[in-house]
Amino acid sequence: MTGVGGFSPDLFDDVAFNDQGLVPAIAQQHDTGEVLMVAWMNREAITESLGTGRACYWSRSRAALWRKGKTSGQVQALVELRLDCDGDAVLLLVDQTGVACHTGRRSCFFRAVRDGQLTTIAEVVTDPAELYAD
Amino acid sequence: MTGVGGFSPDLFDDVAFNDQGLVPAIAQQHDTGEVLMVAWMNREAITESLGTGRACYWSRSRAALWRKGKTSGQVQALVELRLDCDGDAVLLLVDQTGVACHTGRRSCFFRAVRDGQLTTIAEVVTDPAELYAD
Repeated sequence: MTGVGGFSPDLFDDVAFNDQGLVPAIAQQHDTGEVLMVAWMNREAITESLGTGRACYWSRSRAALWRKGKTSGQVQALVELRLDCDGDAVLLLVDQTGVACHTGRRSCFFRAVRDGQLTTIAEVVTDPAELYAD
Repeated sequence: MTGVGGFSPDLFDDVAFNDQGLVPAIAQQHDTGEVLMVAWMNREAITESLGTGRACYWSRSRAALWRKGKTSGQVQALVELRLDCDGDAVLLLVDQTGVACHTGRRSCFFRAVRDGQLTTIAEVVTDPAELYAD
């Protein structure tokens, strides 16, 4: 778990949050390279993710911290947090337990334009009813 | 080049553009899985990318279409366009010529939090002065 467990607050000098105090964050499975999802982070979500070693986002719909997997158990262990050249996007290398998508698919990017049509290209791995049983 | 060269405009029924008419777009090298950059696309950028088979974004700073590589030659051939579960993020699988980053590095995500500090983890491959000579 490189870089997890505390960090210099100077980090935030280099993060270009938008006018809502957010940056888009991409979660990528650290060993396979699969892009799992895109969400948003604020300063608090970054602090918590680096402090706990588990990905935490900001839910824009709920206007609250979103501790990924808290309900579903599908947590993301944080392997490394990266920042892009202009500081306005974050890449999280994670180790995803189970599935990242609320539809029960491994990745949220399960639709592709093929032969001109939006096509489902990945199967449901876990029944969402199991993920959100409680 | 799957899915490139025309598409049904119904696609846009499934894209959840923000109030500026944009969605974040991640460019990923199709064979290695490397995340190269994050940019933004509007309807026109998606149409052009799928039509021409080359990644085209929307530059928020210039408020204009950004035909990636037009100046630098570092074009991205579009292999596949994917959409996430709620339609508010796009994943472009591309074949990147040269480097994606304006700093001359392969990926824009060349900084990582390691030992608590933001650390440069990738070297400059091509001198930016060469990329933007004209």
